[in-house]
Amino acid sequence: MKATFNSWDGKYRQPFGAIQAGTSVKWSVAIDEEVQEVTLWLTKINEDDMAYPMTYNSETKMYETSIRIGTSGLYYYYFNIKQNNQYYFLQRARDQFGEAELTQDSTDVRTFQLTCYDRQVPQEPWYTQGVVYQIFPDRFNNGNPHGEITGRKKNSFLYATPEDTPYYIKDEHGAIARWDFFGGNLKGITQKVPYLKKLGVTVIYLNPIFMSSSNHRYDTQDFMKIDPMLGTEQDLQELIQTLHDNKMHLILDGVFNHVGADSKYFLKATQDKNSDYFSWFNFIHYPDKYQSWWGVTTLPEVNKHNKQYVNYITGPKGVLAKWTKMQVDGWRLDVADELPMEFLRAIRDRLQKENCQLVIGEVWEDASHKFVNSEFRPYMAGDNLTGVMNYPMRNLIINLLQAKDEAGEISAMNDLEKLVENYPKAFLENCLNNIGTHDTERIKTVLGGDEELVAMAFGLMFAAPGVPCIYYGDEAGLIGGKDPDNRRCFPWGKESHFLEETVSMLASARKANPALVSGKVGFVKIRLGINALVRYNDREIVVYCYNRTNEDVDLDASEMRTYCLPEMIADLVRDLLDQEVIAKKDFLLKKADMMEKEERK
Amino acid sequence: MKATFNSWDGKYRQPFGAIQAGTSVKWSVAIDEEVQEVTLWLTKINEDDMAYPMTYNSETKMYETSIRIGTSGLYYYYFNIKQNNQYYFLQRARDQFGEAELTQDSTDVRTFQLTCYDRQVPQEPWYTQGVVYQIFPDRFNNGNPHGEITGRKKNSFLYATPEDTPYYIKDEHGAIARWDFFGGNLKGITQKVPYLKKLGVTVIYLNPIFMSSSNHRYDTQDFMKIDPMLGTEQDLQELIQTLHDNKMHLILDGVFNHVGADSKYFLKATQDKNSDYFSWFNFIHYPDKYQSWWGVTTLPEVNKHNKQYVNYITGPKGVLAKWTKMQVDGWRLDVADELPMEFLRAIRDRLQKENCQLVIGEVWEDASHKFVNSEFRPYMAGDNLTGVMNYPMRNLIINLLQAKDEAGEISAMNDLEKLVENYPKAFLENCLNNIGTHDTERIKTVLGGDEELVAMAFGLMFAAPGVPCIYYGDEAGLIGGKDPDNRRCFPWGKESHFLEETVSMLASARKANPALVSGKVGFVKIRLGINALVRYNDREIVVYCYNRTNEDVDLDASEMRTYCLPEMIADLVRDLLDQEVIAKKDFLLKKADMMEKEERK
Repeated sequence: MKATFNSWDGKYRQPFGAIQAGTSVKWSVAIDEEVQEVTLWLTKINEDDMAYPMTYNSETKMYETSIRIGTSGLYYYYFNIKQNNQYYFLQRARDQFGEAELTQDSTDVRTFQLTCYDRQVPQEPWYTQGVVYQIFPDRFNNGNPHGEITGRKKNSFLYATPEDTPYYIKDEHGAIARWDFFGGNLKGITQKVPYLKKLGVTVIYLNPIFMSSSNHRYDTQDFMKIDPMLGTEQDLQELIQTLHDNKMHLILDGVFNHVGADSKYFLKATQDKNSDYFSWFNFIHYPDKYQSWWGVTTLPEVNKHNKQYVNYITGPKGVLAKWTKMQVDGWRLDVADELPMEFLRAIRDRLQKENCQLVIGEVWEDASHKFVNSEFRPYMAGDNLTGVMNYPMRNLIINLLQAKDEAGEISAMNDLEKLVENYPKAFLENCLNNIGTHDTERIKTVLGGDEELVAMAFGLMFAAPGVPCIYYGDEAGLIGGKDPDNRRCFPWGKESHFLEETVSMLASARKANPALVSGKVGFVKIRLGINALVRYNDREIVVYCYNRTNEDVDLDASEMRTYCLPEMIADLVRDLLDQEVIAKKDFLLKKADMMEKEERK
Repeated sequence: MKATFNSWDGKYRQPFGAIQAGTSVKWSVAIDEEVQEVTLWLTKINEDDMAYPMTYNSETKMYETSIRIGTSGLYYYYFNIKQNNQYYFLQRARDQFGEAELTQDSTDVRTFQLTCYDRQVPQEPWYTQGVVYQIFPDRFNNGNPHGEITGRKKNSFLYATPEDTPYYIKDEHGAIARWDFFGGNLKGITQKVPYLKKLGVTVIYLNPIFMSSSNHRYDTQDFMKIDPMLGTEQDLQELIQTLHDNKMHLILDGVFNHVGADSKYFLKATQDKNSDYFSWFNFIHYPDKYQSWWGVTTLPEVNKHNKQYVNYITGPKGVLAKWTKMQVDGWRLDVADELPMEFLRAIRDRLQKENCQLVIGEVWEDASHKFVNSEFRPYMAGDNLTGVMNYPMRNLIINLLQAKDEAGEISAMNDLEKLVENYPKAFLENCLNNIGTHDTERIKTVLGGDEELVAMAFGLMFAAPGVPCIYYGDEAGLIGGKDPDNRRCFPWGKESHFLEETVSMLASARKANPALVSGKVGFVKIRLGINALVRYNDREIVVYCYNRTNEDVDLDASEMRTYCLPEMIADLVRDLLDQEVIAKKDFLLKKADMMEKEERK
């Protein structure tokens, strides 16, 4: 018996991908032999399994059923086929781009996922179509007139030279003894806006900038104050003004899960049980034992169900209101997984009231089926986050560039395919893609120092759905292992011009080709080390093809396998690539106008 | 039987104290009963014991002998008395200011010491009569126009503020991972010459200033270069010129026992076995195992018997010649105990050739009987060191101010008495007294933060024989525990004016009263916490009397016990102090002109 289903093919599933609640979904399965029953098993997470009999349609010669999905959430499905009183399971095949396969093993059926959301997240053109640049403020640029460092913190250390490698100063117990600073500041960022603009950057995302002890500032002392070492509120206003004057925008980092143990909030809580702040924290033994982030006692965790605290962050005179009124354009939420959904919704609501539509959550995995402490996190619902940091994208890009065999490359492509299938389209296009952040090794280091590979990684990030985000210095060829080495100073005057020009070219391509922003996604497998990512819409096709081998290669349509592409598009892609020469360690960005191509046929 | 001897009393020993080789010494012992024999047992270190029979002099009624001490070195003596065929030993009594006592226990006879030198060390009036100020250059003052720090070392840290407490940045193995700097420099010292002059300082002693990785610079990279962070040779020249223009002088720190593992010398030695530098070091397993200072691998020890090395330091174009020709006035030798005597003599010879008479050794104990690896170090001989850092003086000053009972105070006074007896007079007067250095806790911290006690410690240091040396900031009330806390930044703008004025007054007194420089020494015990140190010569008596109790006290001659003072001087001292009121936690500096006093009698 052969049973056919493919979640990517409209013949078998309509519509594709994630759906809005209230949408009817039609499933169709083709079977080449006579069977007794075909059943769709559809399970909503935390609810009972439901069985939907499929009926044979003699016109289409397929077993079909249509079900209206009434409520948003995470659904899984597979098919059950009964033949000769035996049961077969039509499950998702591994790494087969949405294809199904039969199994008789009922113990571990691989399901397909169906994401159902309440509403599409909004897309702000400046963001969704933009190019983001992440800056770790202490390490980017010092804008003071003579490079002096102002607002210095008592009992902290300054690096002697910008070339110094970052180092955590720890005591004998492994705790940070003193914080280390290079002295970057807001003025320094404002000064470099022309550099970023030339690079093609349109949005800056800043790691935390509020008053803190540390250089990373995830240990907030006061949410209402700019860290004096970074500058003043006026410096922030000037940065925002300069960005807006240049049609650029600003995203800030909101760290609302925990505060610094030396924050005014926590200090007051520990000094006085009757303080308003006492109930913000969960004391296990007052005042010295308390819940803290991952047990890091310098980061006491806040009780995010506490109404006073929620109001402090999300109220009309709260933290978000204050800074968003200063024309901050969007927010990234640190450790979003640890913020209650209610709190996330309150954040989103407040921002909407302040005309801000951008709330990017820090989530490290596929956010469409994220569980925290066994509890499903409905990030896709549409009423909380509007996007997430796309670490799975980083992983698959690195895997594509490091796979030892074609199976590995296929697997990486499938990882991308799954994101496209699982995430609502608008949500995925709002995700903040990266090939490196302040929490990962630098891409150049991961890729063995090979800048040509780094250029390909940038190419893949720009070709994939989602908003590309450049971690400061990656475009300059900065290297660095794990934290803190990934937080070196931007190498002003010693940049890699090759990478800067690559990024600049990619940013221009993204601006010129809407398909790179909102096009559908497909894949081309050519040979080990040579693959392509396809983005297309009704008007254009853009193909990003890279060659990470050490040979120049003449591409030949006959050796191309295409995935997730309608036949017509697949043909056009083959046409586009056929006979092209792709140089070793290089990439091609090919484009075709749909009308022209059709004529050419 | 009563037998009497006192090494301080001219009746019993002539001359007093250390003697020059070739001098005849006369010993006399008084015994109140008939005895069979009296013998002087005199032992030169490393030689056989010698017995000298003493003969009864019916005129003086004492047993006497005179011996010419022909060769310099360390001698010990005691007396043996035979009565009724029994043997008695007349030994040094503990804490009795040179008095002897009888014992029959032959197992552990406490001997008297006799130091014999070849020649007196020279006394440079600018030094012996001076007031020294020790500066740890990184921590004193930054003289750059805007406080910028120049000559920064790669991968080092700078303190964020001058108030920061020093901190060693160590790796998980406890080794220094990065060096920490405040950024003091030579220009900064030059700028503060007026401050020092006002304080009464006449000599600056600088911790090492040659090129090094560390902030203490005891790990020399290049003996021929000023550390770039401290400035240039011209900066040193300007400092010297400024000092000399103000009749002030400069002592440098010579660190010749070891070098930095990153020194050009050691690097060349490890890179090339045929290098000239190879033989400078003692490799145990080339190139990774080598002899190093106290096993600190960053400080490879130099083979000080190596002629090339000795010539590099002491040759006519060597390190000492280079800097001394630049008018450096004197040298302090780091870890003098670990430099061979020959090397010390070569250093002294070179400096003499360069018209420099000052070689102060770092020796922590009584330098008149110092042994290193069981080998006697003849520091007093007169041909090597001209003085040592006087740590025993620091100890006894602290003991005097902290003793819980009068026995403790008496013991501390005896410690000073022993230095006076053991050291050649000129040598002791050349010793660099201190109540704190870069290697000890700060005096204010030792004394519990009590500035009145610190003032008394300064008073005792200025009243004692030897050159007072103020550790930068001690006069400003700086606190600090052990290294590195004892190396805080000078607290400019937050100085203790009380202590500054105390030091300034003491420096003036020293200048006005030659007895404080070269006078003989005696003691007055009054009561617990109230004692006096007496300095006198033929012309004047100066008495330094302190009261560390919490009561104002009317002094009464009847309760004064004097030690080490001729009766006439003791009477004068009693006269001077009698009826004086000494306020609680205060001190008196009383002076009498010998002629006047005699008239008053």
